Amino acid sequence: MILHGYWRSSAAYRVRIALNLKGIAVEHRVRHLRRGEQREAAYLRLNPQGLVPALELDDGTVLTQSLAIVEYLEETHPEPPLLPREAVARARVRAFAQAIAAEIHAVQNLKVLNRLKALGHGQEEANAWARETIAEGLAACEALVRAAGAPGPFCFGAAPSLAEICLVPQLYNARRFGVELAGLPRLLAAEAACLALPAFAEAAPERQPDAE
Amino acid sequence: MILHGYWRSSAAYRVRIALNLKGIAVEHRVRHLRRGEQREAAYLRLNPQGLVPALELDDGTVLTQSLAIVEYLEETHPEPPLLPREAVARARVRAFAQAIAAEIHAVQNLKVLNRLKALGHGQEEANAWARETIAEGLAACEALVRAAGAPGPFCFGAAPSLAEICLVPQLYNARRFGVELAGLPRLLAAEAACLALPAFAEAAPERQPDAE
Repeated sequence: MILHGYWRSSAAYRVRIALNLKGIAVEHRVRHLRRGEQREAAYLRLNPQGLVPALELDDGTVLTQSLAIVEYLEETHPEPPLLPREAVARARVRAFAQAIAAEIHAVQNLKVLNRLKALGHGQEEANAWARETIAEGLAACEALVRAAGAPGPFCFGAAPSLAEICLVPQLYNARRFGVELAGLPRLLAAEAACLALPAFAEAAPERQPDAE
Repeated sequence: MILHGYWRSSAAYRVRIALNLKGIAVEHRVRHLRRGEQREAAYLRLNPQGLVPALELDDGTVLTQSLAIVEYLEETHPEPPLLPREAVARARVRAFAQAIAAEIHAVQNLKVLNRLKALGHGQEEANAWARETIAEGLAACEALVRAAGAPGPFCFGAAPSLAEICLVPQLYNARRFGVELAGLPRLLAAEAACLALPAFAEAAPERQPDAE
């Protein structure tokens, strides 16, 4: 399999973690987002959305959207599980993942910040938009973890799950934008436990060959 | 079960369709978004994110995030299925759903448009932001359906799925903002086939008791 990604893409980072947790080796191919390589014709034939990541299977099938790719990996490589077994617990983990992917990351990614700049806002205003989006969203995520009431260090159980697959890249992003993280003890404890695991540590942006 | 929703919320509309397709009756409770009822303390105790929908189960458990709720309904009430059986086909449907929920709806919802206004943009600029987001996103969705190569009228098979559960509310939104839909024949064919089904027709915003 080939993972089309970019070192700093949060969505590609999620898929790298999932692949590492499942012990699946893939070839990595870089699509340099800041140079617009994701909008080149050859890539658009693979992924008409022009986004990373895309996972190219051995038969040429291309899967897109990080959360759909992680669910695919979970269904085709069930061990170790990335979702709990029980339906309510699975729903909580998926809701947390959506709360990051849709409510935070989708609203603060490079594409949205570039649109703000096209509307006349400067880099500092764009950064403030990202900071506010991340801070508000992560506060809600901390509340979701507390409401679920599972013991730590992970968000929803004794092992990392789809929740941490989304959380760790989002916290990486939060630090890039200087978000105040002091009010998020459960999220930070989960992150620390994850970063002690090779599957997470080796997926980090700085550890990728295309890191700048 | 109680569905906390609002007639015009795309995310609540998705869950209404899923419940109808599964034949699950619930009590509907309105949280009036434009009056800010989703940010009242009593509701924040149910859903710390302050968003609709939330599905309150009979034992008081609260599930949030529309896509997580639909997956929960699929797991607890498998018939009729809202996802195909085969893993690649499931991944395609989930990617399409994410392409709408994260790449379109999350970037053009009321909350984001209100933030644009708070940055000094008028209603017409906010509407243009929504129109551009929806038009670009739906064009990518049309390409995803064509790339999958399934015969119509539905996007990915012989029956409506999670794809249409996301598509129909997004097309409703597209019309509200005056998006040009002529280049989306596959999406429009799927929508027309859906709206002929009572499960979709009865979930429409105008059919809800709180419609204004």
